[in-house]
Amino acid sequence: MHCLNVELGERSYPIIIGSQLLGDAQHLLPYIRGKQVCVVTNETVAPLYLSRVLEALSEFDKVDTIELPDGEAFKTLDTVNRIFDLLLERRHNRSTTLIALGGGVVGDMTGFAAACYQRGVDFVQIPTTLLAQVDSSVGGKTGVNHPLGKNMIGAFYQPRVVIADMDTLATLPEREFSAGIAEVIKYGLICDEPFFCWLEDNISRLMARDPQALAYAVDRSCRDKAAVVAEDERESGRRAILNFGHTFGHAIEAVQGYGNWLHGEAVAAGMVMAAELSHLRGSIEAGLVERVRALLEAARLPTAAPQGMTTEAFLDAMAVDKKVMDGRLRLVLLRALGDAQIIDDTPRELIEQALQTCGAT
Amino acid sequence: MHCLNVELGERSYPIIIGSQLLGDAQHLLPYIRGKQVCVVTNETVAPLYLSRVLEALSEFDKVDTIELPDGEAFKTLDTVNRIFDLLLERRHNRSTTLIALGGGVVGDMTGFAAACYQRGVDFVQIPTTLLAQVDSSVGGKTGVNHPLGKNMIGAFYQPRVVIADMDTLATLPEREFSAGIAEVIKYGLICDEPFFCWLEDNISRLMARDPQALAYAVDRSCRDKAAVVAEDERESGRRAILNFGHTFGHAIEAVQGYGNWLHGEAVAAGMVMAAELSHLRGSIEAGLVERVRALLEAARLPTAAPQGMTTEAFLDAMAVDKKVMDGRLRLVLLRALGDAQIIDDTPRELIEQALQTCGAT
Repeated sequence: MHCLNVELGERSYPIIIGSQLLGDAQHLLPYIRGKQVCVVTNETVAPLYLSRVLEALSEFDKVDTIELPDGEAFKTLDTVNRIFDLLLERRHNRSTTLIALGGGVVGDMTGFAAACYQRGVDFVQIPTTLLAQVDSSVGGKTGVNHPLGKNMIGAFYQPRVVIADMDTLATLPEREFSAGIAEVIKYGLICDEPFFCWLEDNISRLMARDPQALAYAVDRSCRDKAAVVAEDERESGRRAILNFGHTFGHAIEAVQGYGNWLHGEAVAAGMVMAAELSHLRGSIEAGLVERVRALLEAARLPTAAPQGMTTEAFLDAMAVDKKVMDGRLRLVLLRALGDAQIIDDTPRELIEQALQTCGAT
Repeated sequence: MHCLNVELGERSYPIIIGSQLLGDAQHLLPYIRGKQVCVVTNETVAPLYLSRVLEALSEFDKVDTIELPDGEAFKTLDTVNRIFDLLLERRHNRSTTLIALGGGVVGDMTGFAAACYQRGVDFVQIPTTLLAQVDSSVGGKTGVNHPLGKNMIGAFYQPRVVIADMDTLATLPEREFSAGIAEVIKYGLICDEPFFCWLEDNISRLMARDPQALAYAVDRSCRDKAAVVAEDERESGRRAILNFGHTFGHAIEAVQGYGNWLHGEAVAAGMVMAAELSHLRGSIEAGLVERVRALLEAARLPTAAPQGMTTEAFLDAMAVDKKVMDGRLRLVLLRALGDAQIIDDTPRELIEQALQTCGAT
């Protein structure tokens, strides 16, 4: 079992990584302060893991469960409102704890509900997808989508503990697994060159879901992300490097409609675009772009724009992205392998050229 | 012009109190960081004061305005979502500033929208009612109602500056003015005996809306509240004394339906109930309860339960109140004039007796 601490002053919390953690009360109970809990999960995850989590909660006075519909399309204010309805109908008070059991969508909505319910109650994350384990576990970003933009409504809100059980990855569909690997690769690219090289050497073990390799990759990814977040909790500066590939990726998701491409798939293609653009600016060699593309392909991830998506569609969607500061497009690009930086003076022509090289029409 | 600083570390902000402040850019501009602003107001306030505020904002690239329907009934997640719609349609980015121009409802919703839009943007408050000036100006409480409870969804979120212009009180309807006085009286009762005595001596000047008396009362109320909030920003302890009269008051509002009784009216009746209960517990003399009742009556405020409201209805509504901790009802009671405390062991029978003394059936 690995345990790492995300250092955020009084909002610090541990991430526990290992196997057979779900039904084990000892990892959960020290972090629940009141006598009421509400497990928020979805219709896909509930049949697989809910009963084990409920076992660990058997000593509480009030244990409620809410099953949300599965999918990014339901990551809306309306769905979060269903959580509020249940909490109020069942008279949960300020000392209740919400437990998110599921992937990133469940975690984002549960965290946001916890941030807003009675102006803030406790919240525990049990991420059951690789993406949620290596991404949502660290950083405190919670929220929902709006028809005009992804994650446009939300809060920075930290969990009391994150429990990442590797066993839950065994049932993960192949596309979702790959989507998680995309974020893992991202950490290597932006801030951890040795990890990127380790990933190149071990990608086949990871794709075979070797538990040892997975636990190592999750632990290292969370540490990399925690180091960046600890420096900049509210994303005013350096933390933005975590958005490497995301500005392009969000454009893909927005234009394709949420749910057609998985987030990690869109980010994978977005990372190739960002790498290509870094090369066009003269920062990195063409060979590194090829290594990025090859590693993502080995992880069975897309490395080009969706068929038929135009450069115009990209640029238009990117203009409402959160990374836009007073009209200037800020992009995260590579200065070298393991070294990302924020650039806000990229000429539009260069962006178009990178998009076209990556298949935009 | 008075200026006081609410001390909350890096979230400290000033409250500027005076006359002819609305159209004066110098009080506003130092607190707006980006080039975009959005003024959120309502259909009642807009015709009175919006044009003066817009004058002060003439130098910005993008100034949008949204007029919400007026009233507590519209303090909902749906209405806040209309603010998000506008911000996204008009492409407001993370460096935008929301300006709340209106009473508590506008302030609460605008603050909550600012807390959640892109996970937090800047926010300025221009409260135009007495209640908003002495209550919402300090404390960072933002949020909306839910059909099952008042202020059940929200965030703690601090403005960059509050501008309280006494001129806006001239147009305030009489009931709303009195409702604001209820909160002013509350500060005297819970933590400021000399101020309570000053209010007894000056209540007729206040009711005649003497500008000098008003500015003194607003300044003193904000200082009293700021002192309590500075000790306990997130309401884990002592801050709860600010809820004096509110547990009973919220029950009145919930049962009557929001909007029939004004918040301050419900709090006024609630304060008499809390004072009565303090007396029944033996903490204060009957004479003090009478002084409270007399001062509230001089301010033309209700001092008894709504006609026909039962003790059962009170107790039922109070059980979902935020002040309930693990099933025990926590109430704010008086130990003496100017000295409130939190009590969680009041017998149900005593509460019923206090309610009946105050007209509950």
